[in-house]
Amino acid sequence: MLNKPSIPKGTRDFLPAEMAGRNYIFQTITNVFSLYGYTPIETPAMENLSTLLGKYGEEGDKLLFKILNSGDFLSKVPSGEYFRDSNKLSFKICEKGLRYDLTVPFARFVAQHKNSLTFPFKRYQIQPVWRADRPQKGRYREFFQCDVDVIGSNSLFNEIELGQIIDDVFTGLNVSCDVKINNRKILAGIVDLVGESGKFNQIMTAIDKMEKAGRENVIMELRDKGLSSESIEKIMSFIGITGSNKQKLNSLISMLQESEAGVKGAEEVEFLFNNLEKLDLQNDFTFDVALARGLDYYTGTIFEVKAKDAEIGSICGGGRYDNLTEMFGLPDVSGVGVSFGADRIYDVMIQLNAFPRELLTTTKLMFTNFGEKEAAFSLSVLEKVRKAGVSAELYPETVKMKKQLSYAHRRHIPFVALVGETELKEQLVTLKNMETGTQEKISPAKLIEKLTS
Amino acid sequence: MLNKPSIPKGTRDFLPAEMAGRNYIFQTITNVFSLYGYTPIETPAMENLSTLLGKYGEEGDKLLFKILNSGDFLSKVPSGEYFRDSNKLSFKICEKGLRYDLTVPFARFVAQHKNSLTFPFKRYQIQPVWRADRPQKGRYREFFQCDVDVIGSNSLFNEIELGQIIDDVFTGLNVSCDVKINNRKILAGIVDLVGESGKFNQIMTAIDKMEKAGRENVIMELRDKGLSSESIEKIMSFIGITGSNKQKLNSLISMLQESEAGVKGAEEVEFLFNNLEKLDLQNDFTFDVALARGLDYYTGTIFEVKAKDAEIGSICGGGRYDNLTEMFGLPDVSGVGVSFGADRIYDVMIQLNAFPRELLTTTKLMFTNFGEKEAAFSLSVLEKVRKAGVSAELYPETVKMKKQLSYAHRRHIPFVALVGETELKEQLVTLKNMETGTQEKISPAKLIEKLTS
Repeated sequence: MLNKPSIPKGTRDFLPAEMAGRNYIFQTITNVFSLYGYTPIETPAMENLSTLLGKYGEEGDKLLFKILNSGDFLSKVPSGEYFRDSNKLSFKICEKGLRYDLTVPFARFVAQHKNSLTFPFKRYQIQPVWRADRPQKGRYREFFQCDVDVIGSNSLFNEIELGQIIDDVFTGLNVSCDVKINNRKILAGIVDLVGESGKFNQIMTAIDKMEKAGRENVIMELRDKGLSSESIEKIMSFIGITGSNKQKLNSLISMLQESEAGVKGAEEVEFLFNNLEKLDLQNDFTFDVALARGLDYYTGTIFEVKAKDAEIGSICGGGRYDNLTEMFGLPDVSGVGVSFGADRIYDVMIQLNAFPRELLTTTKLMFTNFGEKEAAFSLSVLEKVRKAGVSAELYPETVKMKKQLSYAHRRHIPFVALVGETELKEQLVTLKNMETGTQEKISPAKLIEKLTS
Repeated sequence: MLNKPSIPKGTRDFLPAEMAGRNYIFQTITNVFSLYGYTPIETPAMENLSTLLGKYGEEGDKLLFKILNSGDFLSKVPSGEYFRDSNKLSFKICEKGLRYDLTVPFARFVAQHKNSLTFPFKRYQIQPVWRADRPQKGRYREFFQCDVDVIGSNSLFNEIELGQIIDDVFTGLNVSCDVKINNRKILAGIVDLVGESGKFNQIMTAIDKMEKAGRENVIMELRDKGLSSESIEKIMSFIGITGSNKQKLNSLISMLQESEAGVKGAEEVEFLFNNLEKLDLQNDFTFDVALARGLDYYTGTIFEVKAKDAEIGSICGGGRYDNLTEMFGLPDVSGVGVSFGADRIYDVMIQLNAFPRELLTTTKLMFTNFGEKEAAFSLSVLEKVRKAGVSAELYPETVKMKKQLSYAHRRHIPFVALVGETELKEQLVTLKNMETGTQEKISPAKLIEKLTS
């Protein structure tokens, strides 16, 4: 049976050069998370569909990858009518799905393990998620999220910390960013003052499209949702506020006086910015009243990060949620977190040429192979080289020197140890610097000294 | 909607303490792979079912998790007869499956990307795999494999290297092991001499059960497969050979004289052991003629590793395969590799108490929170502490000291910086050693010096 090798659309293989870049991103992010005292958890790729369904809206439910039940799954299907409706049938023959994000599994995890966790619980989680989305540039069906959350504390010091984490990660990755911050309570206040509280989530979804779809389309959508011209104008005047962070806050606080929630939100933003300003941050933090975030579950601070010099959507985002674990039987637990999109960050860093040059080097030293005896001597030297922590290998085949050197060259190996008859007799190696081409015959001890200094 | 939180059977959540142990294993393994010049790749969790089917035997096919096609999958089902047969229907409504191991995806990867790879290609791959197996102790439906392979070289120096890698990994993990080695060519020679070459794979499957099922059951299975008593006795006399590695090899070489393959296999084992003996290995390497390995695709050296002092199956295994990429259109490429079972290694290390003690420590320093002003001062000190590379955090809530210290204690945080009114006024911190209980009031500069020395 001969298959033309291929993989499902929207998924990707990663070759060593891409892995080097990806691992650099994961390592940088992990180091920052650890520096702030967050510890890792992992959850299974498969969750029960009952855990996932109804958490991501109707559209989200459609994008879940469902796993077919094992064995004779048809025995659970009660009657023929199911065979006329794919959607209806799918829930009879599938009990599990691939996770769609890391937030809902995290809420499930916290509720399930609440007695084993120390609260406030600071966790990070770096795992792939899957969405049956239409594949297109920058949008994949399998991609990694890097989530960092504190749950069990409603202190705004958590938001400050997340701001610092965002700043440290992108400074570490050498990507300049705009970090936009808003607060859902401000938006609730605005909607409240307009008298449209019942349509809060719909209004958020519309406002969230401001940057992508433009002001005119947002107004059109709000009109379609049944808002009056007056209401729309009022909303637009709020979210169109300009000036410095401080100026915007001052205007808002006076405009929102009549809304308790609105004032509370503005004060939270004020506290956050007052503290962030005292810190030595490298990226731009902006208060943006028009930032809404699409997801229903945010209740306080919201974050969104974009790379300054790259044309791509948001590369990090998140916010505070007050009721996420409630649907798993654990009410009154507030949390806040952000998610870094590793795949988009990778794309940005490629665009900006932001990766360090030396990432590609792997093996530092290769021994040539000119015969069994020479190779056996090389093995004994190799053992010492590796004990000294130097990544090294023996070319496995006895083939022409040219072929061996060409392999070293293509793999970006900077040093080659030539071991021929003469070297074997003298118990020395000839060290070749692949960049300069210079060679010198030295002892194994001297070789190790050179490579570790 | 209220869900009692749970996860699919056979899958697991990992809490921070377990993650610390697991990451220690992955890190140790990765470091060794890198030290030998292997570079990482990753493949998608989902593969086309056509890639996976027919590679793992009939039993394996049944254990694949299949992904339901998105959208109106029923429109692809031609007639009602499919609705009476789960197995038949499944292939009409599923085109993708979760990967069952890393070897077949690797073979697919090599064939697909052959023009972008440098051969011999040395790769490692650490990713989860999924099997719809009956869950039981030590057997999970989602587990990690850590595979390391060289492909595109039939030199036995690769086998030597894999032996060293196995030795380095388990030495690094502090787990003493028995490493058993055999060669499929020897087994082919034996089966050949017995005159049962047509039943090679069936005989391998039977012999593979020797340790688990016992000699009597293997004999019974061979009889069921239609082998004569004489053949069975002959096979048993071969695989029952005793003595030192050298003695066993000498006996075999003379017993196998009539079989070219058999002699070749014995010579390969001899070469491998001659070279391994010259190296400074910490684990026991044994030539075991009864080692067969269940999988069909091995053609040369085979490896199997068991922990010496733990009751558990093999924790690492592999071997040489000559035709694995052929089914993806790339013939005549020989490869050899081994796979480390991270989940079983974890279980072994828990049994043997082999993890280093300090793994659990995460945050090194926690600042107490006695109010907004004190916390703001702590934030400025924290910024410097983290710049010095010390993992540190601020307790987010202003609550009683006892509660804050109890949090630090439960999280194994070794140092706490107390910052109250007095410290704020003097711009100092009181550093408390959580183990000894001693306290001292020091400057931020002195604090950093203490924590980094």
